[in-house]
Amino acid sequence: MTDLNAVLDAADNGLDRSLDRLFEFLRIPSISADAAYAADCRRAADWAAAALTEIGFEASARKALGQPIVVGHRRTGRAGAPHVLFYGHYDVQPPDPLDLWTSPPFEPQRVPGPRGEAIVGRGASDDKGQVMTFVEACRAFIETRGELPIDVTVLLEGEEESAALSLVPFLTENREELKADFCLICDTDLWNAETPAITTMLRGIVYEEVTIRAASMDLHSGMYGGAAQNPIRVLARIIADLHDAEGRVTLPGFYDDVRELPPEVKAGWDALGFDDAGFLGAVGLSVPAGERGRSVLEQITTRPTCDVNGILGGYTGEGAKTVIPSEASAKISFRMVGGQDPKAVQAAFRQFVTERLPADCEARFLGHGNSPAVTVPSDGEHVRRTQAALTEEWGKAAAIIGSGGSIPVVGDLQHVLGIDSLLVGFAMDDDRIHSPNEKYDLRSFQNGIRSWIRILDALK
Amino acid sequence: MTDLNAVLDAADNGLDRSLDRLFEFLRIPSISADAAYAADCRRAADWAAAALTEIGFEASARKALGQPIVVGHRRTGRAGAPHVLFYGHYDVQPPDPLDLWTSPPFEPQRVPGPRGEAIVGRGASDDKGQVMTFVEACRAFIETRGELPIDVTVLLEGEEESAALSLVPFLTENREELKADFCLICDTDLWNAETPAITTMLRGIVYEEVTIRAASMDLHSGMYGGAAQNPIRVLARIIADLHDAEGRVTLPGFYDDVRELPPEVKAGWDALGFDDAGFLGAVGLSVPAGERGRSVLEQITTRPTCDVNGILGGYTGEGAKTVIPSEASAKISFRMVGGQDPKAVQAAFRQFVTERLPADCEARFLGHGNSPAVTVPSDGEHVRRTQAALTEEWGKAAAIIGSGGSIPVVGDLQHVLGIDSLLVGFAMDDDRIHSPNEKYDLRSFQNGIRSWIRILDALK
Repeated sequence: MTDLNAVLDAADNGLDRSLDRLFEFLRIPSISADAAYAADCRRAADWAAAALTEIGFEASARKALGQPIVVGHRRTGRAGAPHVLFYGHYDVQPPDPLDLWTSPPFEPQRVPGPRGEAIVGRGASDDKGQVMTFVEACRAFIETRGELPIDVTVLLEGEEESAALSLVPFLTENREELKADFCLICDTDLWNAETPAITTMLRGIVYEEVTIRAASMDLHSGMYGGAAQNPIRVLARIIADLHDAEGRVTLPGFYDDVRELPPEVKAGWDALGFDDAGFLGAVGLSVPAGERGRSVLEQITTRPTCDVNGILGGYTGEGAKTVIPSEASAKISFRMVGGQDPKAVQAAFRQFVTERLPADCEARFLGHGNSPAVTVPSDGEHVRRTQAALTEEWGKAAAIIGSGGSIPVVGDLQHVLGIDSLLVGFAMDDDRIHSPNEKYDLRSFQNGIRSWIRILDALK
Repeated sequence: MTDLNAVLDAADNGLDRSLDRLFEFLRIPSISADAAYAADCRRAADWAAAALTEIGFEASARKALGQPIVVGHRRTGRAGAPHVLFYGHYDVQPPDPLDLWTSPPFEPQRVPGPRGEAIVGRGASDDKGQVMTFVEACRAFIETRGELPIDVTVLLEGEEESAALSLVPFLTENREELKADFCLICDTDLWNAETPAITTMLRGIVYEEVTIRAASMDLHSGMYGGAAQNPIRVLARIIADLHDAEGRVTLPGFYDDVRELPPEVKAGWDALGFDDAGFLGAVGLSVPAGERGRSVLEQITTRPTCDVNGILGGYTGEGAKTVIPSEASAKISFRMVGGQDPKAVQAAFRQFVTERLPADCEARFLGHGNSPAVTVPSDGEHVRRTQAALTEEWGKAAAIIGSGGSIPVVGDLQHVLGIDSLLVGFAMDDDRIHSPNEKYDLRSFQNGIRSWIRILDALK
């Protein structure tokens, strides 16, 4: 234990240099959803491979179908040493709307935050900041002891925030190389500012883009208004039809494979005392807007949803234009739970839209990725040791929780490599991930590094 | 009549130079709805004032609240000469979507058109091409005879395609200077390719922009999806609610002041034989999408409407972003007919939206202009003489028609100057005004100049 304190002290003493490295990483605008940033994605992959090489990993940014995938190995050389695969992603969400950022998204800053200092910048939390907690934990071990306590393979992808086309083929092709005892993932939240968490349930997703076309050209609303079909109105009606008055999704069969939470799990969650008012109030809301009769925690973790993530049609500049556009489009996503089949939901959605098209309208669909909900074991030796290490660091028992977000790789790792994942993260729900002014508390970063040091030691 | 033939011949012989001047005018991107083009609007006003000065008008671009207003006078010097005010506008619609233009919108071209050559470019028809038919007719008189047959004042505004804030104060302030016997306006269509028309009914407009705000920031749809209000969904439901299953607008009281077309007018229109299939088919449509039980001609001219002209919310770039935006907005306009009061419709719309806001949502409204429907006399000496002149030029009796578009100045001239307007235009409904690849048939331009020569002569 004296030894581990030396590693923990090394991490604390090196915090400023750890932050310098994180800021270098954050300055690269690796926006995978926008093809204009492809070169920046490559640059971020190269940067991450170099950061691993510098601490003795055999690492490189490897060619994949889309953005490169970073793989690094560092073995202890001990026969029978446990072997973990660490997964993270180096790509980030688009930063728009840019005008709402108080500092440029790719010029990270240290600013006063809700609980001490925070790091603000796109990717500060999701996922560059979280990834670097693990990398810096490895660095502290290597700089202090010259080795890691267990065998580690690091896998960083660059399409988690976009189409994610490359990962499954890459996992399949490199199955033997990437096989490990289990996977560690750092892309989730603390339960609250004081309580660490291991996430064992994740919602899946179906993300669709639909474009409705009516006339063959944009029309003058004076000359044609009244007689011409308006694709914005058609789209609005379809979106309105997707929910009933109780807040339930109206796609036929949507709830068939949704399961109720087992009573003992529900009881455990109730005991955690989720703060509905605090959760909503932090973002300016007060009334749960989802399915009637469900708690907020159910609405955001164990119930499926449908949201419109974007809509565009006609004239959206300053002032007025009297146009009936020929097209309108929307990005619509569904969060999957339980046994819901993403392919069936996608098909039901496309049929739902098609059935509602009036004369002279056609719909085009573009899928932006599907993944089912996943559940990983919440018991077993790895989980117990990790839970104990987290409890030791935070001084409060680590919670076992569900998350409303989707981390498709968890399912992919189960299917392709046959391994389960252990999800530990240090983000907070006020981190504004995917929003302007994304931040990561400095204590999330520092205690994250310290937590991984304890976990790696506990897993040996 | 020999004399008039000389003027007509001068116009025909000078057509290439007339086109050179029109093309100069069209090259100025005078987009009044976008503040970034304010300098270009001033440039277009100066250009038009110079064009009038060159043919002996006492003309200048005058300071107004917003874009400058061009005023030019040319008197015959004869006591008791009739005096007309010609109204047009030098501003144009925004050209987007730019990628659908086959040539740059502000680099006008002569291209093969549906009936001989056409001029393609933003403003070619609406309204620079139409304005220049009148200016070039004046030029032909002056170059041939050294004078115009009647007193002419030209008034060109620069905010017809946007907020139109300047015109009424300007008319009010310069009431004495601008007073004339009546107004000539060239901003309407032919009845069809062979038949000229005088337009005597115009729909009004109420143009509203509404922004719905829910959370105080953009949210991650995984973390908040299910519990957070989505302003795109709220907006979509409101838009869907604005029409019933019969295609009627659902605002309370909306139809109270809508009048049925008098039977004799309806009979006259029926005799004109409007081609429903041809009108819709030209833009890729086949089924009238408006109020059930109304003809296409009624739907587009004598019935009020509601259309969504633009909608924007969330992520609309390439690929996917799992965001629940904090705001979504739409531009929604109503076409007014009969005695409908624009202010009442605006108030009813705002109340309609406000009543439908769920908890945690607020709506902001921005008005982009209101004008009532107008009717101008379809009999009287001026109309008879103009009709005869048009019939002489086109060899087919000029029709008396209604138009679905809005020309708010007609009402403004009635209220402020106390004068009626006579609306004669040479545009075609396939001119794609407000759309990519706007065009004006070369024969519209040439026969338009010739028509004004005959009309000016007939009015003396």
